[in-house]
Amino acid sequence: MEILITNDDGIYAEGIYALANALKKTGNITVVAPDTQRSAVGHAITIADPLRVTPASRNGKFFGYAASGTPADCVKLGIKAIMKKRPDLVVSGINLGGNMGYNILYSGTVSGATEGALLGIPSIAVSLDTFVDPDFTAAAAFTVRLAASLKKRALPPGTLLNVNLPNIPPRRIKGVRVTNQSLTSFNDWFDKRKDPHGGTYYWMTGEFKATDKDPVSDINAVNQGYISVTPIQFDLTNYKFAAELENWALKP
Amino acid sequence: MEILITNDDGIYAEGIYALANALKKTGNITVVAPDTQRSAVGHAITIADPLRVTPASRNGKFFGYAASGTPADCVKLGIKAIMKKRPDLVVSGINLGGNMGYNILYSGTVSGATEGALLGIPSIAVSLDTFVDPDFTAAAAFTVRLAASLKKRALPPGTLLNVNLPNIPPRRIKGVRVTNQSLTSFNDWFDKRKDPHGGTYYWMTGEFKATDKDPVSDINAVNQGYISVTPIQFDLTNYKFAAELENWALKP
Repeated sequence: MEILITNDDGIYAEGIYALANALKKTGNITVVAPDTQRSAVGHAITIADPLRVTPASRNGKFFGYAASGTPADCVKLGIKAIMKKRPDLVVSGINLGGNMGYNILYSGTVSGATEGALLGIPSIAVSLDTFVDPDFTAAAAFTVRLAASLKKRALPPGTLLNVNLPNIPPRRIKGVRVTNQSLTSFNDWFDKRKDPHGGTYYWMTGEFKATDKDPVSDINAVNQGYISVTPIQFDLTNYKFAAELENWALKP
Repeated sequence: MEILITNDDGIYAEGIYALANALKKTGNITVVAPDTQRSAVGHAITIADPLRVTPASRNGKFFGYAASGTPADCVKLGIKAIMKKRPDLVVSGINLGGNMGYNILYSGTVSGATEGALLGIPSIAVSLDTFVDPDFTAAAAFTVRLAASLKKRALPPGTLLNVNLPNIPPRRIKGVRVTNQSLTSFNDWFDKRKDPHGGTYYWMTGEFKATDKDPVSDINAVNQGYISVTPIQFDLTNYKFAAELENWALKP
């Protein structure tokens, strides 16, 4: 099994190292990841600039390829320019911080896996719902088991798995829930500040708190100690409303 | 009616100028747009850097606010830091180049309108399917009519309208089609090149050609001379497959 690994925290992050080490038992891994942090880049790609690719070592050993682009760029580069064989699986993560609710639209981690799915390859995004004291053990182990499942079972075309885990010891995890994307979004605002020269600048800040009670939403599953697995897809058409929109009888 | 206008081609692009001038008849407009081209940024937001906002003039008159961020940043800034009243409508465009099929995932234009929809405001993305000799007349006029429709009728929560037009004279436009997002994606590859110093770099390139025959897909409607209006939404859950995924009986 050929496995392409990426993330958005950058190739030197701890999460991708834990993930790569765990997946070595499952197949041949190729790591292509951003050379620096690329969080909140959404599904950005780099078309107006050249991309550079540099070998990257960790602990004195070759680890993978650092690219000057986004997670989506890395997956395209991996598949179309770096790997000799087409991968059987794309895994993006393990992200520091959950990717749930409408926040997945901003997520570089999810966009890496999305790019894999768009290219027709089974893909998984994995995120750990914490920014402090991460324990990647359960996330890495679960991803290995999910990869094994994907050897035997197929995802529908264009669908990927978005996995989120609570940051608790493996023995305290209650189970796995198949979830839907919560309709919770980031509640953000701007700090208006003055720079040392008197100029005004804004800094985005905010909080992400569950606003729904749905027990099978991603965020509530994680908050209750479950691993959340959401199948997501990218046909964004609101088919139900499309029928109603016909009645608007729009004219050019 | 308070209208917030943004784009991803930058505040000095021709398309946003045509759009703003047309929408002046409809309501009070506020333009908040990127200070430079931000194409293919996806739904990126700027959280690791400060944002700067500068007044921008066109033809010697105040036109709007140039921001150092992405289209999604601009919409957040407009609503949460710049406008005194909450807008009744967000319009993003008029983009040079169509935003159809899976390409809408990469689109800064669509992401501006998406941010509006996430914040609960009726939102429209408008794109003209050409990169050369654009004629924005039909697109601007249609957007004005669509804005009038949205005064009378509501979109479902979280749903926005993605509008694409062929670049043909208004009299040759055949009509308006309510469409679905085509499952066509960008067929891209990398040019591997050497820089003047012998270093290797990659440049992404490719083509976007309809791969489906569906007459009600966005790309086929535009290719046949219609204005395409696709209602899109951002609950990405594949509910149909979620039921099947339950049968996988995943364990932590």
